[in-house]
Amino acid sequence: MANIKITPLNIELTASVDSNLMEFLTLNGINLKNNCGFRGSCKKCTVKLLSGNLNNDAHYIDNIYLACQSKISEDIEIELIEYSLDKAFKINKKFDFHSSLTCLQMEKININVLPPSKEDKTADFERVMALFPDYSIAGVEVLKKLPFALRENNWNISVIKDNFKKLIVDIDKPSDKQILGLAVDIGTTTVNIIITDLTNGKIIDSASSYNEQISFGTDVISRIIYSQREKGIETLKAAVVSTINKLIDDICQNNNLIPSNIYQAVFAGNTTMMHILLGIVPNFLRIEPYVPAFFNYSPVANEIGININKYASIYCYESFGSYVGGDISAGILASRMYKNDEISLLIDIGTNGEIVLGNADWLISCACSAGPAFEGAGVKNGSRAINGAIDSVKINNKSLEPEITVINKQKPIGICGSGMIDAIAELFKAGIIDRQGKFIKNSERIKDKSYILVNIGEIDSDKEIVISESDIQNIVRTKGAIFAGIYSLLEYAGITLDEISKIYVAGGLGESIDFKNAVAIGLFPDIDRNKYEYLGNTSLKGCYLRLINYKEEQDIKKISEIMNYFDISEDEEYMNRFISSLFIPHTDLSLFPNIFK
Amino acid sequence: MANIKITPLNIELTASVDSNLMEFLTLNGINLKNNCGFRGSCKKCTVKLLSGNLNNDAHYIDNIYLACQSKISEDIEIELIEYSLDKAFKINKKFDFHSSLTCLQMEKININVLPPSKEDKTADFERVMALFPDYSIAGVEVLKKLPFALRENNWNISVIKDNFKKLIVDIDKPSDKQILGLAVDIGTTTVNIIITDLTNGKIIDSASSYNEQISFGTDVISRIIYSQREKGIETLKAAVVSTINKLIDDICQNNNLIPSNIYQAVFAGNTTMMHILLGIVPNFLRIEPYVPAFFNYSPVANEIGININKYASIYCYESFGSYVGGDISAGILASRMYKNDEISLLIDIGTNGEIVLGNADWLISCACSAGPAFEGAGVKNGSRAINGAIDSVKINNKSLEPEITVINKQKPIGICGSGMIDAIAELFKAGIIDRQGKFIKNSERIKDKSYILVNIGEIDSDKEIVISESDIQNIVRTKGAIFAGIYSLLEYAGITLDEISKIYVAGGLGESIDFKNAVAIGLFPDIDRNKYEYLGNTSLKGCYLRLINYKEEQDIKKISEIMNYFDISEDEEYMNRFISSLFIPHTDLSLFPNIFK
Repeated sequence: MANIKITPLNIELTASVDSNLMEFLTLNGINLKNNCGFRGSCKKCTVKLLSGNLNNDAHYIDNIYLACQSKISEDIEIELIEYSLDKAFKINKKFDFHSSLTCLQMEKININVLPPSKEDKTADFERVMALFPDYSIAGVEVLKKLPFALRENNWNISVIKDNFKKLIVDIDKPSDKQILGLAVDIGTTTVNIIITDLTNGKIIDSASSYNEQISFGTDVISRIIYSQREKGIETLKAAVVSTINKLIDDICQNNNLIPSNIYQAVFAGNTTMMHILLGIVPNFLRIEPYVPAFFNYSPVANEIGININKYASIYCYESFGSYVGGDISAGILASRMYKNDEISLLIDIGTNGEIVLGNADWLISCACSAGPAFEGAGVKNGSRAINGAIDSVKINNKSLEPEITVINKQKPIGICGSGMIDAIAELFKAGIIDRQGKFIKNSERIKDKSYILVNIGEIDSDKEIVISESDIQNIVRTKGAIFAGIYSLLEYAGITLDEISKIYVAGGLGESIDFKNAVAIGLFPDIDRNKYEYLGNTSLKGCYLRLINYKEEQDIKKISEIMNYFDISEDEEYMNRFISSLFIPHTDLSLFPNIFK
Repeated sequence: MANIKITPLNIELTASVDSNLMEFLTLNGINLKNNCGFRGSCKKCTVKLLSGNLNNDAHYIDNIYLACQSKISEDIEIELIEYSLDKAFKINKKFDFHSSLTCLQMEKININVLPPSKEDKTADFERVMALFPDYSIAGVEVLKKLPFALRENNWNISVIKDNFKKLIVDIDKPSDKQILGLAVDIGTTTVNIIITDLTNGKIIDSASSYNEQISFGTDVISRIIYSQREKGIETLKAAVVSTINKLIDDICQNNNLIPSNIYQAVFAGNTTMMHILLGIVPNFLRIEPYVPAFFNYSPVANEIGININKYASIYCYESFGSYVGGDISAGILASRMYKNDEISLLIDIGTNGEIVLGNADWLISCACSAGPAFEGAGVKNGSRAINGAIDSVKINNKSLEPEITVINKQKPIGICGSGMIDAIAELFKAGIIDRQGKFIKNSERIKDKSYILVNIGEIDSDKEIVISESDIQNIVRTKGAIFAGIYSLLEYAGITLDEISKIYVAGGLGESIDFKNAVAIGLFPDIDRNKYEYLGNTSLKGCYLRLINYKEEQDIKKISEIMNYFDISEDEEYMNRFISSLFIPHTDLSLFPNIFK
């Protein structure tokens, strides 16, 4: 690993040796100018090398280097010249990158063709395709536009091609129009999308909202039951398609983009969500022996109804079992845990809690029904980790008064996962609630078995924000399900906690998660807090990675090959473990020797 | 070549040595029972060998052989045991066949899959696809049906697969449902279709009608002009799609078939017709330098709107020039002229006259604007060569009374191409018309510059059927265009008439064409009448061949490779030749030394 000191951001990141500098910066949320798809021809992605060495190929002038041509080989210090910071990905050290250059699947190039003549009467289509041997065209709509595009633009057109599938996806007049990519994480509760510029991998914008399917049930089981009604599957599919289309619309309107310029899309979600997206009844997921209709299938764009280009290239992440879905494949990719020789654990907390254990040789995954509490659903003043969410809480042991932080310092609107973890840990430490989560103290802050985090008028709030005893019960059930799942999986794999070198935590809990508190409430095992790392929405990040680098397909294939599925419903001990976990932190305190140290 | 004597039909056909007997019989309109796709397993296609030898592999019992396993190696005499005769193809000697077995692209097989269990939770899709490595599925609709089909049929389903494209096209409950193929010849004036059983290549039925586009203009130029109007291309496309869909409906209703069981379709038509079928404006075909939008493109089924299975495999025959289209590629395939070492000529008389010259090493094609007279359009009592059409005419030199034959001996409805050729030749021989086609004699049969072929009441006719002077002018222009085209092409290629070993005549003229008369009116060159052979609708036959044998793709590729296009509009002599041809038979009688011998 090499340290990368970055001026003027005044941050230091760690990169794998052999990483490409441009790619490393981009994936850490730092965007440099780039017009040539990382090919080194536009010369816009310049950085100043302040100390250390970069490869000579990347050398441009004096101490200026082209980031896209630079390989990281040692500790360096660089100064950024022209850059922007990404809205979607906060700067973090969460990614380890391929050392290869990013391989963009979609490319837009301008071509000049010789016009036909008396001597050369080749048809328009064959005339253009002669420049692209091995390629075919995506469909008849492209062909329809061709004769006019050629003649109106003096036989000089722009061609959008899929370098991986070898397809001409569109043609157009030569223009600076962007070609866009879409990454979609379909959660049972929350849908997150990113739109990228496919010419350089840059994230243009991100958006998220609750999945409109919520009105048909909050968990996958109730969705599956609903899907069996007459027109049930069509209704559910329409709901998620509408959710995604509205998010696309939002981003496109805010950024002046055209949805039909989205030429590639990657989707990840749990097994049920992927079934519904394709309009396939997930019924048999809940009938013995619980098998999905499919693990791995990617439809063509015009069969799913998402408002993108008709011929866009679609990828859906593979599921591994009835309750370990494409969101987990994507998450494993984003975590890079399949590249480690040491064993690590990935815990993705969504409406289901999915847990993956393994290393470069093997992976085992399982899922447990956690519930959407940490995403803000089923909790009175719950919220997703968005602007205005209370994301950390401290409670003074004497005054019992709270001290909170709010994402982006906005007016508080609710409490997100990391805030809930803090609140319960602090309420417990302050002796306000007991091990069963019941209120056992009185104070001005406590009313109707609820602790008031924000009173009306405090921090400009126009509403009271509380955490109630029933919220706490709900959260305790969620954390109990996950904790029990972790132990069941470890036992199934015959792995002890000591053997785990890293625990990656994914999901929408919130960046400011306090792992000490998460252990204190019994959500996570009591091991060295430094082994924990919060990765955020790995499902979405996995979609993004697949969008910008078609070489990821090799890694995706590898993950699929080494993956095993552990069906927790077959584990007779799970229910006992779950019941033992319905306390703060647990009935068996010997599992938490370091909890209050 | 070998002679095949067939009892009880009492006919003798000529076959290439090494032809497969089953294929040879099928393609000559003789259908034997077959349930196994010519694989030799159903043992139904039995024939009795009366004399000569067949290969021993095909031997079944005593002197009974399986036709599908028999190779023709010498003259034989066979007796058919159980057979039916085909409605669409009259028995003829017109085809020369591949010696290989027919390779059916689509296949329906029944599979039994192991049901999932606690130990094997593979998803339905992956469970089935494990039986078909290298295959993928055609689309999400197939996937949607899979979980139900498997469970409702006890894990025993029928799979329809495309052996050439390696696709699972459909799944269903195990049943005897037919899988069907569609061959479509799209003429400017007439559309012809055939529906086949794809499990054995058998023709189920054929149908034809005028192209509904006729109301937007009778020739390709007027269609092209119409296509430029607002919604013009959509209107024209809808017209041909409606024509085809009605024909499909007719056949399906008459034969109790389901259109969505059509899993493969082959289309041929001239360049303009192929553009319109795909909804592509053919405008630039009539603007210098006259190039099409495409030569060779086959869309997916759901992009053209034909009422067949959504995932049917579609093939469109390649065009070679603005006015030499896919109907000619198909015709060349059907004629097998590209297999001959000697030079032959293919003349396809449709609304355009297309002419191809060549042999196994080279081919040159050209097109001339003939007009639809021989298809019955633009001629007062014209008709296609269907039941009720007058297909031959004799006129008594003294009484000037006609003697006619009607297709299938039905009540006469009009006069088809072969009847028109006869009528003009006979009117001329009887001295009723002069070399310019003008009436110069009077008789009871002549009225208002028209010759009455059928009076009301004759042969049950409820109408008068005549051929008028303006009809004759029209037909003379048509034949003049074709004759001039033949000579222009010969001169361009530097080939003399003597070098031509065979003239294949294609188009809807009618089976009973009299080549002596066709030469006598100056439609065809004055060479040995035995060199002429009428092949009928070679465009449709080419579609049928491609439908039932995917190895034809190799031949289609070869044709494309050796094909050259001669643009007759670049030939300054053509117009002079045309004007000289506007006489019966021609201004230059020296071109017709044998005409009245």
